[in-house]
Amino acid sequence: MVKYSYVGKDVPRLDAIEKVTGTALYTGDLRFPGMLHTKLLKSPYAHAKIKKIDTSEAEKLPGVRAVLTGEEAPYRFGIYMSDKTILAIDKVRHVGEPVVAVAADTEEIAEQAVELIKVEYEELPAVFDVRKAMEEGSPLVHENLSEYKHAPFVYPKPGKNIANHFKLRKGDVERGFREADVVIENEFYQPQVQNVQMETHTSIGQWLQNGQINVWTSAQSPFAVRHLLGVGLGVPLHRINVVVPYIGGGFGGKAGLHWEPLVVLLSKKAGGRPVKLVMTREEQFYTTAVRQGFYGRIKTGVKRDGKITAMEILYLWDAGAYADYGVNITRAAGYSCTGPYEIPNIKCDSITVYTNHPYGTAYRGFGHPEFHFATERQMDLVAREIGMDPVEFRLKNAAVPGRITATGEKLREDAGRVDECIKAVAEAIGWGKKEPKQVGGKLRGRGIAALWKAPAMPSFTSSSAILKLNEDGSVTLSISSTEMGQGTPTALAQIVAEELQMPIEKIKVVTKRETDFGPYSWQTVASRGLFMEGNATLDAAKNLKEQVKATAAELLGVPKEKLVVAEEKVFVPGQPDKSLPLASLATAGIFPDGRGIGGPVLGYGMYTAEGLTNLDPETGQGLPALMWTFGAQGAEVEVDPETGDVRVLKMASAFDIGKTINPTIVKGQIYGGIVQGIGSAFMEEFIFDQKGKLLNSNLTDYKICRAQDIPDEFVFIPIENPQLNAPHGARGVGEHPRISIEPAIANAIYDAVGVDLFEIPMSREKVWLGLKRKGERK
Amino acid sequence: MVKYSYVGKDVPRLDAIEKVTGTALYTGDLRFPGMLHTKLLKSPYAHAKIKKIDTSEAEKLPGVRAVLTGEEAPYRFGIYMSDKTILAIDKVRHVGEPVVAVAADTEEIAEQAVELIKVEYEELPAVFDVRKAMEEGSPLVHENLSEYKHAPFVYPKPGKNIANHFKLRKGDVERGFREADVVIENEFYQPQVQNVQMETHTSIGQWLQNGQINVWTSAQSPFAVRHLLGVGLGVPLHRINVVVPYIGGGFGGKAGLHWEPLVVLLSKKAGGRPVKLVMTREEQFYTTAVRQGFYGRIKTGVKRDGKITAMEILYLWDAGAYADYGVNITRAAGYSCTGPYEIPNIKCDSITVYTNHPYGTAYRGFGHPEFHFATERQMDLVAREIGMDPVEFRLKNAAVPGRITATGEKLREDAGRVDECIKAVAEAIGWGKKEPKQVGGKLRGRGIAALWKAPAMPSFTSSSAILKLNEDGSVTLSISSTEMGQGTPTALAQIVAEELQMPIEKIKVVTKRETDFGPYSWQTVASRGLFMEGNATLDAAKNLKEQVKATAAELLGVPKEKLVVAEEKVFVPGQPDKSLPLASLATAGIFPDGRGIGGPVLGYGMYTAEGLTNLDPETGQGLPALMWTFGAQGAEVEVDPETGDVRVLKMASAFDIGKTINPTIVKGQIYGGIVQGIGSAFMEEFIFDQKGKLLNSNLTDYKICRAQDIPDEFVFIPIENPQLNAPHGARGVGEHPRISIEPAIANAIYDAVGVDLFEIPMSREKVWLGLKRKGERK
Repeated sequence: MVKYSYVGKDVPRLDAIEKVTGTALYTGDLRFPGMLHTKLLKSPYAHAKIKKIDTSEAEKLPGVRAVLTGEEAPYRFGIYMSDKTILAIDKVRHVGEPVVAVAADTEEIAEQAVELIKVEYEELPAVFDVRKAMEEGSPLVHENLSEYKHAPFVYPKPGKNIANHFKLRKGDVERGFREADVVIENEFYQPQVQNVQMETHTSIGQWLQNGQINVWTSAQSPFAVRHLLGVGLGVPLHRINVVVPYIGGGFGGKAGLHWEPLVVLLSKKAGGRPVKLVMTREEQFYTTAVRQGFYGRIKTGVKRDGKITAMEILYLWDAGAYADYGVNITRAAGYSCTGPYEIPNIKCDSITVYTNHPYGTAYRGFGHPEFHFATERQMDLVAREIGMDPVEFRLKNAAVPGRITATGEKLREDAGRVDECIKAVAEAIGWGKKEPKQVGGKLRGRGIAALWKAPAMPSFTSSSAILKLNEDGSVTLSISSTEMGQGTPTALAQIVAEELQMPIEKIKVVTKRETDFGPYSWQTVASRGLFMEGNATLDAAKNLKEQVKATAAELLGVPKEKLVVAEEKVFVPGQPDKSLPLASLATAGIFPDGRGIGGPVLGYGMYTAEGLTNLDPETGQGLPALMWTFGAQGAEVEVDPETGDVRVLKMASAFDIGKTINPTIVKGQIYGGIVQGIGSAFMEEFIFDQKGKLLNSNLTDYKICRAQDIPDEFVFIPIENPQLNAPHGARGVGEHPRISIEPAIANAIYDAVGVDLFEIPMSREKVWLGLKRKGERK
Repeated sequence: MVKYSYVGKDVPRLDAIEKVTGTALYTGDLRFPGMLHTKLLKSPYAHAKIKKIDTSEAEKLPGVRAVLTGEEAPYRFGIYMSDKTILAIDKVRHVGEPVVAVAADTEEIAEQAVELIKVEYEELPAVFDVRKAMEEGSPLVHENLSEYKHAPFVYPKPGKNIANHFKLRKGDVERGFREADVVIENEFYQPQVQNVQMETHTSIGQWLQNGQINVWTSAQSPFAVRHLLGVGLGVPLHRINVVVPYIGGGFGGKAGLHWEPLVVLLSKKAGGRPVKLVMTREEQFYTTAVRQGFYGRIKTGVKRDGKITAMEILYLWDAGAYADYGVNITRAAGYSCTGPYEIPNIKCDSITVYTNHPYGTAYRGFGHPEFHFATERQMDLVAREIGMDPVEFRLKNAAVPGRITATGEKLREDAGRVDECIKAVAEAIGWGKKEPKQVGGKLRGRGIAALWKAPAMPSFTSSSAILKLNEDGSVTLSISSTEMGQGTPTALAQIVAEELQMPIEKIKVVTKRETDFGPYSWQTVASRGLFMEGNATLDAAKNLKEQVKATAAELLGVPKEKLVVAEEKVFVPGQPDKSLPLASLATAGIFPDGRGIGGPVLGYGMYTAEGLTNLDPETGQGLPALMWTFGAQGAEVEVDPETGDVRVLKMASAFDIGKTINPTIVKGQIYGGIVQGIGSAFMEEFIFDQKGKLLNSNLTDYKICRAQDIPDEFVFIPIENPQLNAPHGARGVGEHPRISIEPAIANAIYDAVGVDLFEIPMSREKVWLGLKRKGERK
């Protein structure tokens, strides 16, 4: 058993005081001399040809510095599927799509100018339903799909509204169904929702006349922004600097690139003045990226003893008008399609479908919250059919180490244990206890749902870290993983403190990210931060130690191997005269006779995700990811049978996180994920009119989970089976708490009142209707 | 002969376009939310007790956020002598010294508040002349001198107005004078002047409630600001981040620390809001640091054959009220006191004297322009006395390799050659040519002056560099040496280009300096940038090469030693199949079978100034510096005998810079130094009233060299005897062109009209008076 001094302790978040005192700087806080402000002319149509754009009146307005149309910005951007220009060209594909952008001295002038722009449209038939969009003869959202660049693992279908079709074929699904005692099929549905970050998409761009591009942006991944911007515009990367200050929430919606090219191109047209764009809350709902909608159909074959024999799965993803991230969500959901179970025979089709809805992107959980609603509801429905306890049923099929996943991967011994999570949650939630179901006229029930998700790190993506020894012996850590609320920087400081055995107060983690200065990091997405940056940071701390030991060994005349770094000193244990303060080695080491050696100490560390992830294009078999995090969530709810109102009394969660670096920060992730999931479970939903116009693009009509909606009680049980290649064994858990909230609650609602729900959000109305129908059936 | 591809070429300055288009950001351009503005209540007295300060009315003024007095800021700051608080405590020591500072919502409110503050003073006798300040019974500027912390090589004299007394004793000066055929003694004088940077001292400070301090400042040395601020305030260094954007000129006046503590303390009092201070031009003249005044007396013994036998030297430096940098200027001038000559017997006393003038600091050349006026005028005066040609006289005594300097240092073979510089300048200036002296009623003359200065780098101070390989194979260099006009970053890019054999267009040098991110660098002062950062950058480039070669060797299956990095590739010469683009190695290397190695490539380099500089406290003998740069300047002038008006027709300069990295940038330094020297030679001067109030604290009454005043012709002859431990042999030459302008011109004036000048500035009036006296003597 390792004895830890800093890892595993409740170190307060490094950013706490700055945030509660309001001094933390966000992109929106930044102002520069001569800065211009952007407003957008947006499409009123879901699908229309652009016949003519007349910007002449807008250009004449005093204070207008640049008016940009799509034709002037013929660049396609994207990380997995470059299907999007930053302003519509030739046609618009969703209501709210920007057509013309104006940069002016003030927001007011820009808004005025937008009103002076005349656009002639020719409306086209639109499609909003993923199943209809799949039909022959459906209006085509993209005519030139074959021309778009995309990642090699993406399989678009030109001539159809299919941006990606991921196939998984394992075993013989027909034989599996034949072997089954029972075969059950169900459909599940979720609407598009929004990530609803507190800070809307905000970017400042400047394209200087010397060819340098400066970007300040609320983006999750500064290096990804630099890369995608450079590739998209054809500008070498060293000419682009991307600065990311604090981020007011990302949740996937700020991964990759969004509006950075727009402000950069406006700046170029405005002669190099900095140009700022702050999305209004309304625009955040329908102009910028949202979470995809979901339709799922699952057919499960099972034996009476509880062993699942086959699953046939169809997942259709409503990517909206553009599908960059969508195509990869489709893939990730496809290779994880079964949930955390060993299923011998599988046929899965996971398809990214274009519609004329707002464009979809990543959202915390990367498709997993959506499809786990389907799989974990289905687990309960199947268990019920064969009369088995849902917990027992899950444990029977659980993908534990040594078992085979959907893609044929045999789980490593250190892969983490979903069975322990399920058992822990069942116990915490009081599973099997015979408590009175009815309390004061309301009905109580319990539900459980398991989950898995691979913290995504494609092969050979990497992270790095710079750890500098300051002249007074303190250290400064620079990493390029962003802080958008997760708390990773605090955990990284703990990793440094542990490795250097140095008080946490002597460690600074730089709060800003800047590509010119910072060490390379691929992206801050997919629960990869702690694992990747943690490993890189550990490497940097070791590198720093090596340097100070090498210098100290010479100065003290002792072998390097005998030296220990701790308490801001490097020393030979038990020999008080063989000791040097770290401060004395920070810029150069000096012998007693005045000679010097060494120089400024900068520890550099890096980590590359090792392992060849690759899936067969026809069968989806292979290694999809380099690690998994498993978990389970349990809900206890109380339903008012008169109104259909559901209150979550308790949420219990267990995740096999390998090792807890900071208990409070982990809990912050867990509780935050649950709260977000409750919003999705009960209230979040895009409501469109028949023409594809979003009717609730504001936080009055679009509800998210508020203080009154959170559970009365949260219980979190950390499961700690360390992963061998992780920093101190710790796995990422950023997205996982957001997964399987909805099915746990839905299963609990059934337990309480016997109503089966297949659609999200599970509004009061739907529960009430379910109760009513049930009553009618009786 | 090394063949260079990038070194030695005229690469355009990297900052050129940003600066000519006005988009380069300076500290003054920065704005932050809630930022406050500072105004100062300044002392109207040169020396007075502060009896009472009443800030109550000012504090009541709406919009005033913090009012700070000296008592609330009892911290002493300084790099060599911590004798200064940022606001006067108990007494004021010069007119313009800040007594109270106000931070308010606007500059106007702050100014109004300052007017509401009442201070009662009791005037004290003041002293303004360094010789009077040395007398017994002079008013004491500092009563508590013994309590101030100072560097070990500083010798203050408590109870006197002496901040430092540097002694140099070599041989037997009395015997030297006895051996001489002629002994000549002269006195020389220069007033205080100002560095007159285009950008005045400007700082923004923020002391957040979490204990973090952020500083944005127009300072030469971000790490020095961090260090001095931290030590002064007792704050650990990792809690301080210092950002330095472009700097509008430093010239020594922005070395060390100036007003950063003031804005930081105001911010603390204002609850963590950022606080900005922009010195007005008037304040720049008498509130902030200026160049010291100078009084010199030199007695020289010489044989008829031209061999100097002895020099007795007294240099008194008018440090004004505070002497931080002054004490080190005294020392540097002391150890270089003779100029670039071998003198067997020397007695020198170089003394920092406190007066009630504005406080002195570093100025381009660090005392050398001042004392070279004395030594190089004296060389001409002595040569004339023994009837020897001044060029021949200088060459006879020149400190060439193998000869012994004033401190007993035997010059290394690669130390550089002043004799070659003198000869080159003599030839360029047409020395000895018998041209008509009188041209159109005006009289022409030629003068020459040699010089030396050690690019100062104390033992074991260091610099470092970070060179990142970007994903597209371009590279980004981060150094912490600042850009204030010198052009060092462009030269460093050339060093990278040469080492990596990579097109200069593919190299970015980060323009901002930031201590949180940047590699450590001691200071950007004393002509050390190119040598120190150049060596560190070279080391970083080699480190980067090692990393890419190591990865490529494995991928290509060849020994590392066979690999070459050039043209953005790593390859085995002559084997086209053994080649990889750098881009393919930037984040990780991938084998054809899909396995990967390596990770993000970050080259780290460092350089520590090696060699034990140390001088005996009694005799000043020892090694004062680790290198020297030698040079000579020649002037051709035309004097109007009617008016005393002097026009510089031509300046010829030669410096042994070892190796030219960028000819145009070197010329920029040379011409800039000359122009600055011409300002000092003819016009720059602080004019005080009898109470110590500066009468010409504006650019109307205080003249600097303007376009109309520059020479008709500049000639620069690079001498290139490489220094072995320098990057490509290149020596620093940032300050040297500023040295020996005044004596070259003074010597030329004598040559033209026979008037000897001993005081600077050599105004028209002084020349005319000299001509008049000469006429009277006839």
